[in-house]
Amino acid sequence: MTDLKNMYQLVKKMFPIHRSITGDGNRETLKYIKKIIPIKIKEVPTGTKAFDWKIPLEWKITKAYIKDSKGNTIIDIKNNNLHILSYSRPFKGKIKFKELNKHLYYLKDFPNWIPYRTSYYKDTWGFCLTYNQYKNLNRNETYDVCVDANLFKGSLTYGELIIKGKSKKELLFSTYICHPSMCNDNLSGPVVATYLAKYILKNMNNFYTYRFVFIPESIGSIAYLKKNLKQMKKNTIGGYVLVCLGDAGDFTYLQTRKEKQITDKVSIFALKETKVNYKLRKFHTCGSDERQYNFPGVDLNIGSLMRTKYFEYDEYHTSADNLKFISQNNLEKSYKMYLNCINIFENNHKYYNKTLCEPRLGIHGIWNQIGASKSKEDINMIFRKILYYCDGKNDIIDICKILDKPFEKINNAIKLMLKKKIILKNLKIISKGTQ
Amino acid sequence: MTDLKNMYQLVKKMFPIHRSITGDGNRETLKYIKKIIPIKIKEVPTGTKAFDWKIPLEWKITKAYIKDSKGNTIIDIKNNNLHILSYSRPFKGKIKFKELNKHLYYLKDFPNWIPYRTSYYKDTWGFCLTYNQYKNLNRNETYDVCVDANLFKGSLTYGELIIKGKSKKELLFSTYICHPSMCNDNLSGPVVATYLAKYILKNMNNFYTYRFVFIPESIGSIAYLKKNLKQMKKNTIGGYVLVCLGDAGDFTYLQTRKEKQITDKVSIFALKETKVNYKLRKFHTCGSDERQYNFPGVDLNIGSLMRTKYFEYDEYHTSADNLKFISQNNLEKSYKMYLNCINIFENNHKYYNKTLCEPRLGIHGIWNQIGASKSKEDINMIFRKILYYCDGKNDIIDICKILDKPFEKINNAIKLMLKKKIILKNLKIISKGTQ
Amino acid sequence: MTDLKNMYQLVKKMFPIHRSITGDGNRETLKYIKKIIPIKIKEVPTGTKAFDWKIPLEWKITKAYIKDSKGNTIIDIKNNNLHILSYSRPFKGKIKFKELNKHLYYLKDFPNWIPYRTSYYKDTWGFCLTYNQYKNLNRNETYDVCVDANLFKGSLTYGELIIKGKSKKELLFSTYICHPSMCNDNLSGPVVATYLAKYILKNMNNFYTYRFVFIPESIGSIAYLKKNLKQMKKNTIGGYVLVCLGDAGDFTYLQTRKEKQITDKVSIFALKETKVNYKLRKFHTCGSDERQYNFPGVDLNIGSLMRTKYFEYDEYHTSADNLKFISQNNLEKSYKMYLNCINIFENNHKYYNKTLCEPRLGIHGIWNQIGASKSKEDINMIFRKILYYCDGKNDIIDICKILDKPFEKINNAIKLMLKKKIILKNLKIISKGTQ
Repeated sequence: MTDLKNMYQLVKKMFPIHRSITGDGNRETLKYIKKIIPIKIKEVPTGTKAFDWKIPLEWKITKAYIKDSKGNTIIDIKNNNLHILSYSRPFKGKIKFKELNKHLYYLKDFPNWIPYRTSYYKDTWGFCLTYNQYKNLNRNETYDVCVDANLFKGSLTYGELIIKGKSKKELLFSTYICHPSMCNDNLSGPVVATYLAKYILKNMNNFYTYRFVFIPESIGSIAYLKKNLKQMKKNTIGGYVLVCLGDAGDFTYLQTRKEKQITDKVSIFALKETKVNYKLRKFHTCGSDERQYNFPGVDLNIGSLMRTKYFEYDEYHTSADNLKFISQNNLEKSYKMYLNCINIFENNHKYYNKTLCEPRLGIHGIWNQIGASKSKEDINMIFRKILYYCDGKNDIIDICKILDKPFEKINNAIKLMLKKKIILKNLKIISKGTQ
Repeated sequence: MTDLKNMYQLVKKMFPIHRSITGDGNRETLKYIKKIIPIKIKEVPTGTKAFDWKIPLEWKITKAYIKDSKGNTIIDIKNNNLHILSYSRPFKGKIKFKELNKHLYYLKDFPNWIPYRTSYYKDTWGFCLTYNQYKNLNRNETYDVCVDANLFKGSLTYGELIIKGKSKKELLFSTYICHPSMCNDNLSGPVVATYLAKYILKNMNNFYTYRFVFIPESIGSIAYLKKNLKQMKKNTIGGYVLVCLGDAGDFTYLQTRKEKQITDKVSIFALKETKVNYKLRKFHTCGSDERQYNFPGVDLNIGSLMRTKYFEYDEYHTSADNLKFISQNNLEKSYKMYLNCINIFENNHKYYNKTLCEPRLGIHGIWNQIGASKSKEDINMIFRKILYYCDGKNDIIDICKILDKPFEKINNAIKLMLKKKIILKNLKIISKGTQ
Repeated sequence: MTDLKNMYQLVKKMFPIHRSITGDGNRETLKYIKKIIPIKIKEVPTGTKAFDWKIPLEWKITKAYIKDSKGNTIIDIKNNNLHILSYSRPFKGKIKFKELNKHLYYLKDFPNWIPYRTSYYKDTWGFCLTYNQYKNLNRNETYDVCVDANLFKGSLTYGELIIKGKSKKELLFSTYICHPSMCNDNLSGPVVATYLAKYILKNMNNFYTYRFVFIPESIGSIAYLKKNLKQMKKNTIGGYVLVCLGDAGDFTYLQTRKEKQITDKVSIFALKETKVNYKLRKFHTCGSDERQYNFPGVDLNIGSLMRTKYFEYDEYHTSADNLKFISQNNLEKSYKMYLNCINIFENNHKYYNKTLCEPRLGIHGIWNQIGASKSKEDINMIFRKILYYCDGKNDIIDICKILDKPFEKINNAIKLMLKKKIILKNLKIISKGTQ
């Protein structure tokens, strides 16, 4: 796990790239990921229909600045990608402050931060700037504005990696690659996803199939679902949207729309068992691709395990969500919590006894053969107790809750009893949740 | 709504009429109602069988008095209809106090009030009087008693108004017209029912069909169910027994026998949302026609929304439940709470999305097109949030509870999205309740 | 019930017998029971297969002692049956203390008590002694050890009594007869079971069939289930393992594995209604034959109603669980609580109304015919309230909970209404529990 240390470095490399919902920035980002895991990079042409939507024109921004009448540069995307209202339509001209003012976005409450704003579907242009910059603008000045943007028939770009498991049943790990130059939201997401995929490929003999998806937010998941929903509905048992994974805050779990699905069950159990502080959020506070994955009729029952949730920290969608706002240490903690969930998912099967009535545990060496002891917690009692609940319906989490024991203790005991052929795995029923 | 002001006046007009479970008093009462809404007045002949019961003889009381040996009138129904034990069998004769005493009913705890008592099924006669009147009777006197009552083959009389709606599914509004000269129980019930029916007829393009029933209590609902149960079981989704609607007490909701039916859901939601104080009562504390409507096998799941519940106020079934005990203001408050429930019933449908994945709200002008705003409560966010729960199963109350928003806000948003054809109404499933 | 007084005497008679999982001690014990109730005594031959198990060789112990080199007797089963590790294999020889020490069992915390230990399935021998005896052993002594035990092809012995009822549906009362010379665990169990069976035979016209089983623990129930499971699965609705019924502690109810089964519902209701203090235990703290009866696939849903639960008192499985530890008074209290449960089981049926709408209670003399009384709790109101819940689905316990009334009050009212043919018993649905 030593190369985990490169997670923060990867964020750093991808930070300067100018990303949007389409364009070369996304392709460049995906190439960084491809160096680590064998994703396929796919293109969906402009104009392709996806449910109620259409893939928009590809957007390319070359230059974007505001100069004053003396030629001094006031705002320039060379300084920060966030300065341009993302997806701005091209504009060139000299305009009065009063006119320019309609195109400016700033944050009064945080006068040194540039906000991140977008205009994917409204035909306009704009600049984002700090409130201090805004205040210094001359109300009587005529400004020279240049938005050298290009909108053309191109495509939307995404990355995909499917890691086959013993089972066709799959878990979705979806993250988005469309945000320019911000770290927690959301370079932290693709980076943690990349390293999780790497771990599964290298270190796991995975039971489930894992579907990793690196897409632009919203339009990306809509386009992806248009293409893959049929198969995904057949096989997906749960999964996550990875976002906001680098900050120092407590964990937050955003529940699936229907709640009590297997992803909710596993995630909340993992959070409780690791005894970290965490917050639970209702689905209707959602904001990312889980909106599509949980939409009525789509119903893939996808949760989101985050640190501080988007909307809930001041730096969200501003230039303050920068390389200082996240840390290698916090990225690793997030990575490990996800790995913990994956481990639970992989082992959380249902088991049943081979015999009616208790089996002879003594012959397997997992029972104290001198009987009738008064001691209440015989070291081997756990095996017998587990067997009472191996009815083909309880999964390991259920048994942990009944016996109030940690997952590893129950899982290890079950592995031993599987090996000794005392119990069998019930693979006909994949655990689907409910509490 | 100005003519609402006539509710109290209508009580006043109907107060002096001598009503019982059968007879001209009921017919006269129904004629007052017919002046306001087009009810049909129907007769069920004496002797008609209804489940375990038979329609009794019609009862007509002409005179009823007690005089002392000097000819002084001691008790006379000319002074108060309640003086006669309702449905008394005829009697004429001079009897000693000791004998008379077996036929007297009074309230020691409230020495100035006349109780209201009945003897529909026991072959006897009696007088109700104040305890003060009782105390003044001479224990050695011989009294001249006259109960000039007539029992003959006639009929039981009730009123019915069915207001057709777009749907065959119907709501029952049942109230009773058999109590003589008392206001809260129950002239308040028929009067509020009458004005609700008038409102629906005049002002609503009602979705549901409304069945208004004005019957004598118990035997009336049994006779009515005998005639109409088959059709009612097919179509009735819920409804109310209207009683005790004029006093100054808090609202009380008596739940259906099975609880968590649609009437329970709507009524409790309405009471909570209007933030009034209210009491909740279990079905087994029932006492009026909901006994029959909820009887096992009948199962129409009818609740009762009252002010102070019968049994729970001292004036109940006494001469103190008079014109002073109720007020126009309280009748109006009750009327408005019912109207509130009707409004919720009418709008509380289930909806589903037209598309998989979120629709393009931007093109309908209900989405802020400059995206990525940090503000948590975007003014249009409500539309998106509602759509997550338009799965054809949640009704508006469910969505209100999930999003913790008022009914009108959600209902208005849904109406707009229906108009814009973003969502569709699911009329196959009429909301049937459960919390 | 005067002969109940013999319960403690029966314990006293059976106390000295040397019982184990097989052997003459068990046969002798069953003969004492057979003097009171007509059980059949059955034998299962050594080697008979039962699920994962085989009936072991029969064990007969003749002599067992430890003497010092001077011939002084240090330990002898003549003094206490518990001195021998039950099922010890034969051994004879002079051995040093160091070697003997490996075969000794004692309790440091209770230096005057002999522990009870067993070695049914490990090929060894051993002695149990007090810690004070142990301390006095000479570490340099060579001891003369004699375990004159015999293991031979014989059989496992159990007793069975099936008391036929009107219904084939049956209740299991299982208790074990394999423990030597201890009173609470478990002579109290067979003795209470014997007197319950006697009561049912003599005094009851029982609706359910009762299956009383007196077996050696674990291997006995496994062997019994092997032979009878098919029929028991068809007919058994619940029942109990009888154990620890003579001590002075509060009642304890050990729930069935699945919980909320009919035995749980009846037992917890009975305990609550009698207003005794009681403890509730989860199934996974089980320890006796309910392990087999509730095993996945067996699923007979058997509970255990005890006084202080095994494992939870110091005297458990020691020589201190003696004739002083239990009392006639406590045996009787346990007996009565079981009788209370049996009474509830026998009467707790489901009922339905003969008519739609309320029946005419007045004609049956169970309704106050002078109506409209203001008194909230009319003495006959209970009949009407019960009828609302006679829907063929609620059993009497359900109705007691809804109306918050005692079992006898509701049961008596129901009996009266059955007699008057107002309601009918629903024998198609035997109550199966859920809270």
